[in-house]
Amino acid sequence: MFDVRCSAVPFSSHRAPGIWYPVSVMRILLSNDDGIHAPGIRALYDAVKDLGDVFVVAPSVEQSAVGHAITVFDPIKCKRITKDGAFEGYAVGGTPADCIKLAVTEILDGPPDLVLSGINLGPNTGISVIYSGTVSAATEGTVLGIPSIAFSLDTFSEPRWDTAAAIARKIVIGSRENGIPDETLLNVNIPNLPLDEIKGCAVTLMGRSRWIEKFHKRNDPRGNHYFWLDGEMEQLDNSEGTDIRAVADGFVSITPIGLDLTRYEAVEELQKWEL
Amino acid sequence: MFDVRCSAVPFSSHRAPGIWYPVSVMRILLSNDDGIHAPGIRALYDAVKDLGDVFVVAPSVEQSAVGHAITVFDPIKCKRITKDGAFEGYAVGGTPADCIKLAVTEILDGPPDLVLSGINLGPNTGISVIYSGTVSAATEGTVLGIPSIAFSLDTFSEPRWDTAAAIARKIVIGSRENGIPDETLLNVNIPNLPLDEIKGCAVTLMGRSRWIEKFHKRNDPRGNHYFWLDGEMEQLDNSEGTDIRAVADGFVSITPIGLDLTRYEAVEELQKWEL
Repeated sequence: MFDVRCSAVPFSSHRAPGIWYPVSVMRILLSNDDGIHAPGIRALYDAVKDLGDVFVVAPSVEQSAVGHAITVFDPIKCKRITKDGAFEGYAVGGTPADCIKLAVTEILDGPPDLVLSGINLGPNTGISVIYSGTVSAATEGTVLGIPSIAFSLDTFSEPRWDTAAAIARKIVIGSRENGIPDETLLNVNIPNLPLDEIKGCAVTLMGRSRWIEKFHKRNDPRGNHYFWLDGEMEQLDNSEGTDIRAVADGFVSITPIGLDLTRYEAVEELQKWEL
Repeated sequence: MFDVRCSAVPFSSHRAPGIWYPVSVMRILLSNDDGIHAPGIRALYDAVKDLGDVFVVAPSVEQSAVGHAITVFDPIKCKRITKDGAFEGYAVGGTPADCIKLAVTEILDGPPDLVLSGINLGPNTGISVIYSGTVSAATEGTVLGIPSIAFSLDTFSEPRWDTAAAIARKIVIGSRENGIPDETLLNVNIPNLPLDEIKGCAVTLMGRSRWIEKFHKRNDPRGNHYFWLDGEMEQLDNSEGTDIRAVADGFVSITPIGLDLTRYEAVEELQKWEL
């Protein structure tokens, strides 16, 4: 017998007793790539917990830079856990995309109304989008036809979770009021500033950038070589209107990301080839 | 001391002795996601080995459905191996994207002129593109500014490697003559037919499709639950001009894939939000 299905009962309900709620209260699925124990998902949970029924299904350990990986050759373990004073949720031994597939297919009683991913410690702007596990959870939500948003905070140290949480809440409310365009996920990057220094929200384009790789080369105890990836981001396009520039200028960047990877501009050129 | 750098000497040279070659012979890097021991990369090697200096850097074990994952939290092992009667190459304990980064940064003496990935056993059409390790190797080549092509064969059994190899060779020669458009990789899917039944090559768009997930649920020997992902592809758009349709109709599908994931159509709608 499997007891993981939660039959539409949220893991932790913050609905106030005695208050009337509409029958169709918003069902929100939370995931991330930093793992279920990361402070960012806790901040996101606290930001939205009173906006609907909130379910947390996230990787049991950090899964950064996994891209849109899914686990097909191995079993996926899944364990219900309680984060004291915060939420109950499922820790999944897989990738962010695995978490969304598993939550929607097996854990929740049908698809949620909204998938939120994050809040990631570190930006996901420019080319980082294609490596990002945070964005991947929102991508998978979008593939499954569920409105989805990825949140990342532009810092690796001294994160201002309070700012990020307030912005995330604002955007979730905005998405509920306006609706997210079809087949589009929102990739949100938040400057690591006090809330009153945030200049506003900007709808942006994914900036052009690349990683300059640097591998550390070492020998293991048995003399075998190994490499360890390191590197830094190089911006190829810092022009106005990009995600990278907006965040640097103190704006919350909201980039619509699509699932169609066709490069339409190249079709005509390729049609001239004689094969 | 590290001896992995090969100083621009190809691992296996098939240049004929006594024949004059241009100084700038084409340098081709091969990778895949089925692993360095898979028959598909052997078929690809044999198809292009006389077109330039060919280097093989591929995962040591199968890495299907890893998306654009890179390995950042673990060391990456790398071992020179010899495939008897075929090629020498490097087996990398990482993802396809790791292989390309490592080859270009550490193993080869500078970037190659062309990255080829495959030949994959199984199609990479429609939404599969975002999960595909085969496509990911070509994506990483493109990120690094190197013309790149991914090849997949539309079958999971009784692969016609001879057809796929002949088509791959034709497209590599075509790409050398015409040049691949900037910031674009070619995602090539080949029908599993005898060569004389292939109807031609079609430049296509990435079709809309999705996976219908089905998880197998089991208990491990200690009574813990685990899930195993299974599923089948559902085509949402089978219209003419898509990769899915072209392959089904017996055409080789060539889809230009870009790195910019912005969904431009959604920008205006999002700008109307009041946040």
